[in-house]
Amino acid sequence: MSSLLDLSPQVSALKDKLETFVNERCIPAEGDYECHVAKFSGADRWSIAAVPPVIEQLKSEAQALGFWNLFLPRPVPDHLMSRDDVSVPMAPSMYLSNREYGILCEIMGRSTLAPEACNCSAPDTGNMEVLLKHGTIDQQREYLKPLLRGFMRSAFLMTEPDVASSDARNLRAKLTKLVGDDGRVKYVLNGRKWWSTGAMDPRCGVALVVAEMDHGQSSVTSPKGKDQPKRGNQTVVIVPMSRPGIKCVRPLTVFGYDDAPHGHAEVLLENVELDESAVILGEGRGFEISQSRLGPGRIHHCMRAVGLAARCYELMLERTLTRQAFGKYLCEHGSCRELIADSASDLEAARLLTLACAEDIDRLGARGARGKIALIKTTVPELTSRVIDRAVQIFGGAGVSGDFPLARALVGLRTLRIADGPDAVHKQSLALMELKKTKKRMQSRI
Amino acid sequence: MSSLLDLSPQVSALKDKLETFVNERCIPAEGDYECHVAKFSGADRWSIAAVPPVIEQLKSEAQALGFWNLFLPRPVPDHLMSRDDVSVPMAPSMYLSNREYGILCEIMGRSTLAPEACNCSAPDTGNMEVLLKHGTIDQQREYLKPLLRGFMRSAFLMTEPDVASSDARNLRAKLTKLVGDDGRVKYVLNGRKWWSTGAMDPRCGVALVVAEMDHGQSSVTSPKGKDQPKRGNQTVVIVPMSRPGIKCVRPLTVFGYDDAPHGHAEVLLENVELDESAVILGEGRGFEISQSRLGPGRIHHCMRAVGLAARCYELMLERTLTRQAFGKYLCEHGSCRELIADSASDLEAARLLTLACAEDIDRLGARGARGKIALIKTTVPELTSRVIDRAVQIFGGAGVSGDFPLARALVGLRTLRIADGPDAVHKQSLALMELKKTKKRMQSRI
Amino acid sequence: MSSLLDLSPQVSALKDKLETFVNERCIPAEGDYECHVAKFSGADRWSIAAVPPVIEQLKSEAQALGFWNLFLPRPVPDHLMSRDDVSVPMAPSMYLSNREYGILCEIMGRSTLAPEACNCSAPDTGNMEVLLKHGTIDQQREYLKPLLRGFMRSAFLMTEPDVASSDARNLRAKLTKLVGDDGRVKYVLNGRKWWSTGAMDPRCGVALVVAEMDHGQSSVTSPKGKDQPKRGNQTVVIVPMSRPGIKCVRPLTVFGYDDAPHGHAEVLLENVELDESAVILGEGRGFEISQSRLGPGRIHHCMRAVGLAARCYELMLERTLTRQAFGKYLCEHGSCRELIADSASDLEAARLLTLACAEDIDRLGARGARGKIALIKTTVPELTSRVIDRAVQIFGGAGVSGDFPLARALVGLRTLRIADGPDAVHKQSLALMELKKTKKRMQSRI
Amino acid sequence: MSSLLDLSPQVSALKDKLETFVNERCIPAEGDYECHVAKFSGADRWSIAAVPPVIEQLKSEAQALGFWNLFLPRPVPDHLMSRDDVSVPMAPSMYLSNREYGILCEIMGRSTLAPEACNCSAPDTGNMEVLLKHGTIDQQREYLKPLLRGFMRSAFLMTEPDVASSDARNLRAKLTKLVGDDGRVKYVLNGRKWWSTGAMDPRCGVALVVAEMDHGQSSVTSPKGKDQPKRGNQTVVIVPMSRPGIKCVRPLTVFGYDDAPHGHAEVLLENVELDESAVILGEGRGFEISQSRLGPGRIHHCMRAVGLAARCYELMLERTLTRQAFGKYLCEHGSCRELIADSASDLEAARLLTLACAEDIDRLGARGARGKIALIKTTVPELTSRVIDRAVQIFGGAGVSGDFPLARALVGLRTLRIADGPDAVHKQSLALMELKKTKKRMQSRI
Repeated sequence: MSSLLDLSPQVSALKDKLETFVNERCIPAEGDYECHVAKFSGADRWSIAAVPPVIEQLKSEAQALGFWNLFLPRPVPDHLMSRDDVSVPMAPSMYLSNREYGILCEIMGRSTLAPEACNCSAPDTGNMEVLLKHGTIDQQREYLKPLLRGFMRSAFLMTEPDVASSDARNLRAKLTKLVGDDGRVKYVLNGRKWWSTGAMDPRCGVALVVAEMDHGQSSVTSPKGKDQPKRGNQTVVIVPMSRPGIKCVRPLTVFGYDDAPHGHAEVLLENVELDESAVILGEGRGFEISQSRLGPGRIHHCMRAVGLAARCYELMLERTLTRQAFGKYLCEHGSCRELIADSASDLEAARLLTLACAEDIDRLGARGARGKIALIKTTVPELTSRVIDRAVQIFGGAGVSGDFPLARALVGLRTLRIADGPDAVHKQSLALMELKKTKKRMQSRI
Repeated sequence: MSSLLDLSPQVSALKDKLETFVNERCIPAEGDYECHVAKFSGADRWSIAAVPPVIEQLKSEAQALGFWNLFLPRPVPDHLMSRDDVSVPMAPSMYLSNREYGILCEIMGRSTLAPEACNCSAPDTGNMEVLLKHGTIDQQREYLKPLLRGFMRSAFLMTEPDVASSDARNLRAKLTKLVGDDGRVKYVLNGRKWWSTGAMDPRCGVALVVAEMDHGQSSVTSPKGKDQPKRGNQTVVIVPMSRPGIKCVRPLTVFGYDDAPHGHAEVLLENVELDESAVILGEGRGFEISQSRLGPGRIHHCMRAVGLAARCYELMLERTLTRQAFGKYLCEHGSCRELIADSASDLEAARLLTLACAEDIDRLGARGARGKIALIKTTVPELTSRVIDRAVQIFGGAGVSGDFPLARALVGLRTLRIADGPDAVHKQSLALMELKKTKKRMQSRI
Repeated sequence: MSSLLDLSPQVSALKDKLETFVNERCIPAEGDYECHVAKFSGADRWSIAAVPPVIEQLKSEAQALGFWNLFLPRPVPDHLMSRDDVSVPMAPSMYLSNREYGILCEIMGRSTLAPEACNCSAPDTGNMEVLLKHGTIDQQREYLKPLLRGFMRSAFLMTEPDVASSDARNLRAKLTKLVGDDGRVKYVLNGRKWWSTGAMDPRCGVALVVAEMDHGQSSVTSPKGKDQPKRGNQTVVIVPMSRPGIKCVRPLTVFGYDDAPHGHAEVLLENVELDESAVILGEGRGFEISQSRLGPGRIHHCMRAVGLAARCYELMLERTLTRQAFGKYLCEHGSCRELIADSASDLEAARLLTLACAEDIDRLGARGARGKIALIKTTVPELTSRVIDRAVQIFGGAGVSGDFPLARALVGLRTLRIADGPDAVHKQSLALMELKKTKKRMQSRI
Repeated sequence: MSSLLDLSPQVSALKDKLETFVNERCIPAEGDYECHVAKFSGADRWSIAAVPPVIEQLKSEAQALGFWNLFLPRPVPDHLMSRDDVSVPMAPSMYLSNREYGILCEIMGRSTLAPEACNCSAPDTGNMEVLLKHGTIDQQREYLKPLLRGFMRSAFLMTEPDVASSDARNLRAKLTKLVGDDGRVKYVLNGRKWWSTGAMDPRCGVALVVAEMDHGQSSVTSPKGKDQPKRGNQTVVIVPMSRPGIKCVRPLTVFGYDDAPHGHAEVLLENVELDESAVILGEGRGFEISQSRLGPGRIHHCMRAVGLAARCYELMLERTLTRQAFGKYLCEHGSCRELIADSASDLEAARLLTLACAEDIDRLGARGARGKIALIKTTVPELTSRVIDRAVQIFGGAGVSGDFPLARALVGLRTLRIADGPDAVHKQSLALMELKKTKKRMQSRI
């Protein structure tokens, strides 16, 4: 077993317990969860009634067992904790390195329910990180505290339907700054967002919204890119979902799945009024925030993808041992064994790449590891997709149905090649970094 | 333009009209269709109310325009036609060769509504072919006539949840023959089927069911294949959906889509009683029927897949001409152009393979062309999937959503690699045929 | 069998005879040919002694049988023919369409010797086409005539080692025009070329050279492309290999093969003096010539690639029927059968794409078909390479050795993805044409 | 940087020196080496004169610098060492773990000369390991000692031309045991081997030969595998190359390269007489030996493959920064950047897989790690081939020529997918191990 998988005895014990929790509690509850949601239709699917009680049950269990907010890289400030708060790890040893968290996050990724059960699910983790790192004490008290406790969920509104979101500068949502007669600053937010994951969740209390500062002059986007709004124009604001003017227009589907009651929304922002306390970090610092937010988010996605693929891979292996065709077990067919071997390779590569990247972040920081982050963001979804695609093929009709997690997993990973920036963008970034290193090497030789 | 695409002036004119009909009538109606169905939930999705009126409208139009039952390879018997029947082509020239139909079927495949609008959709075409070729006059009068007129839909029940359906001999549904005191023969049908496309459709009037003859003795399937039930045991029977004992247990989803109101059902057959007139062609001739049924079915799927991919390809091209990222149109990015070129190649290869195979059937018969049929059954879904996958990637979030036909198309083609036999089975067959030819060549050399 | 493969009875008979000639005369002679060449080393490999006598024998046979210059699209002018000339087809019916030639060229492609034996090998065919189309009567008498008769071979010098030849405008060879005191025009040619196929062949009598016109002023190539020499600057000149100043610097190897005595040379051109009669078509018309020359050349390469892959595929099939591993014949292993089926698909697709493209040229002209030409130029080498790669894998050690044609074939096709422009260039061109068509379609809709 | 790459200060210093040695001494010497060999033709290519003096020079340097026999897993027995022997590492700390050696072996793999320069090249390392592990003191003195000192080279004769060597039981070379009148045992060896790497090397002093014990009775190989000779029949014997009856029939080429003066031979063994001291480990223990020998050999190949691909990758990056096409540097073309990014991913995955496997061997032993060994044996050559294939494409004509190491590297890695067992065999083994683990997991659940 590779040292990339080494854990201290404490974390190792935690991992074993987590494995049991995921396999014996979360996975068996998935059917329940789906059945509960399936009872609702139309707008009711986004009502509090549609939230399956089992998830709250699992959250309590996870909290009790200590699998809570494991994504947190370091202790939270005292003002966020009460004396006997169980919402964050008590023992310092439980603040995990990225590599350690990667190993545990892979296990959570095996079940669609485990990340939420452990309060480690997107987009909340990213939002909590932003608030922890950049939030004022007030912002932390109001929003971070309930998020850490799992009392509330949140959304992150960046992508827009009207522009190619592969280019992060391509935003049209506008934040207009107004100064009142009393000298008090007010902001008005307008725009249309989509793929706002969790915005329709009845438990969603707050959204972080990325918008362009509108300085009055018209900033028509020119096709030639020269006059494009600069990155320095983006600002992130905190918007409570109850604020007038914010409206979930419709749920989006992902290959036919609406993922209710969490889902993905198209959100209209019409003259949403905010005061100065809504701005995170400062005007024009949005690009910085969204980049830092996406860094770890990208690798958490990869970690979960590995876990999901590992589960599908195991299901595939079991299937080949129990189904027959043409007079022998599937696993006795040579071509079926090739699928198994190829999947073992893909899975191993995906896991090593992910953990080595996590270790790079531990050693070099997210900025120093951004080449590797770009690398795994495109490679791991592809590798894990291939594993699941083979599993689907071996399951046949059952593989594309709702009876197994395979179909859902396959389209989930397909979507991951688009979410947080399509492959093309990350490949360009990675290549640019490699070219820069090469230039340096060439110069040093002269 | 390749001669594979050549058409007589008459058929060419028909093609132009069909193109207009599909592009201007069917494609624009798809949104309507979906909106109508989306209003229904639960069991109502399978009610007659859920059938969008627009489809009946399109059927009338198609019939009036002469795009009706174009799949028919030859005139139907007189007893099926009334004097001024518009349900079948009147002019002999309108009985199309497989290659000609392939060109038109590709066009229908562009829209999810066109095949049904033209009474050329699965599984009805396959069932009509079976009835036309093998049905008695009574069977034809009762079932084929309403199908040809589009008054009724039908299902084909072969695949079973309990056994690997890749092996067509692997059936457990049983047809027990009983001889009454009066000497009259009766059959009792028992079994469980799934992926019974259209069985839950409120318009579905009849199912063709493949079952094993049960000759009394226990026929336990041995893992070693030696004692497996022989192909000669399979029988196809006609079962009206109203018959007691036939029950649609639940709808299945395909990657999150339930495809209501047509859909895919799991069907329980409990002591369904049938008399002798229900048997098609004769006891033990089921394998023969299902093979002949699937031959053309397989290539119709491929034809439609090419049409669907062509539509997605065009959408992708248009998208790259209208969206910008990083200061230029997507089509100005070199890596995006590679996706276009690769897709053009894949699409061209898929189209040529399909039409050349259709021409082989025209020249050699389905049996003579079965190597090519196996070849395109695995190759065309893969080639066309790649085209659509690239389109999804270029569309980003919009590509996986319900706003464009891409997401639905991608999982539809993924499913096609499983339906009517998974790739592995067809590849084995193709290889065996190639090896047989090689042996012959080697022997002729000695 | 697809209509793309249909032939008139006359051509069909020719095809049968050609098949026999290639299989029974050319293929068995390959070993001889290689053994003969292997006796020579160093510079001797490029001597007339190194030319295997068997090739002249095969040329006589091919000429006698009427497989001579079949690539010719139309009768040659009378001044090139003597009364009973056997060097060109006599019967008008023997001037083949591109599609017909494609079928025969595939057969020639099966053997490394057949194209030369039939006087249909690169680069001679391209050069003959240029001279036939654009040469003056004098140029045709002096150079085309011996080429048509197979008395001489030729080279085409375009690619240069110092610049990326993917960009055809990127040439540095210079043609300087000087006007003498007597008013007579003279040209001086300077430059360095490589991948000059056949230039070291002892039978090579003439080279067609592409060079930039040097108008005196310095034309430093700027990196930004704006001041790049225009296409209109290129000129093609005829240079007899005996002319002073032309020097083959060294043979190049292709993955370890030097392909002696034909080979690929690096050629230095130092103050090669030429008079006006050396210019083909006129100054500045080089781009036009090299494009028209490459068009058919590209598809001939594809045709031969299909033939070569077909031969390797057959060898693979035979191997699987005669070798055993793990107690059964290779063909009985399921994973081996998948390789066979995948290869059958790739080969069929490659063949259909090539012939459909040839038919497009027949119907629309090379210009009208240039999208398809670009398409097959990238797709067919890839498809056929895959077939051969699988054959290599099945042959194991024998596959990479010199005992079978597989290793040579594989690297030959790998090289084809670079020769006549790398894939990337053709993909960009194809995409641009597709985008142009799309724009038109979009405009017509408004 | 991943912990998989961590080294102790001592080994890290060694690594830095090795890097300098490979980059500044070995790589620049490659041209020399090739030029020297190119002067010889025919049989002379296998003469001692053809061995480039530069390699002996590099060997001295490597020995002096301490890069000698680094592959050795542990100190050699005293009887193999003289007092001030420099042929083996003196410091215990210099006995490297497999992971550490992997990092250094990757660096050696960058140059075709470095492994031999460091006395770490195949097949000698494998043979030395066998002799070290299983040899008698006499065998070690006679053969291991000169090998360790680099005074001699060796060969390993297993593969045979007449049978599929993918199946290691499939051997026909026979070892007949004879007992003389004096009671002394004698063996007679007969057979034909090929791909006997290094057997034609003029410095090759000894071959290890795998043969079947011939117990007198005819052991006709039956196609059905039931009566196949068992593994227990294989025996490994030591055969000095000077022994009568051993004859190198011919050199084999690998995609046109003969790799002289080392090369790959076809070897005929005709009545080679041996006495009891020639047997390693004992009669019938050949399978055991060849398996243990191949284990580390497989991963050394992978390590070198990563180094070679890394070098090609760097060359590709540099090329894109210095060549222009269409008015900009190659690295400014988006499609070129995708090739870079994909290669970075493939290379990173290959490296991690290889080092993680090496670490598995360190922790679990070769037997415990054999699943991972099978995994990387198929995956790493594929991943690294892709990197080099892209480099070839970017270099264009230069890439397939002898001017850069790319062409040689590409076919070398292609061959690696066959050497030491084709991919298919390793995939089957890996799948079987995965299935066994799965069965266990399933049983533990009940």
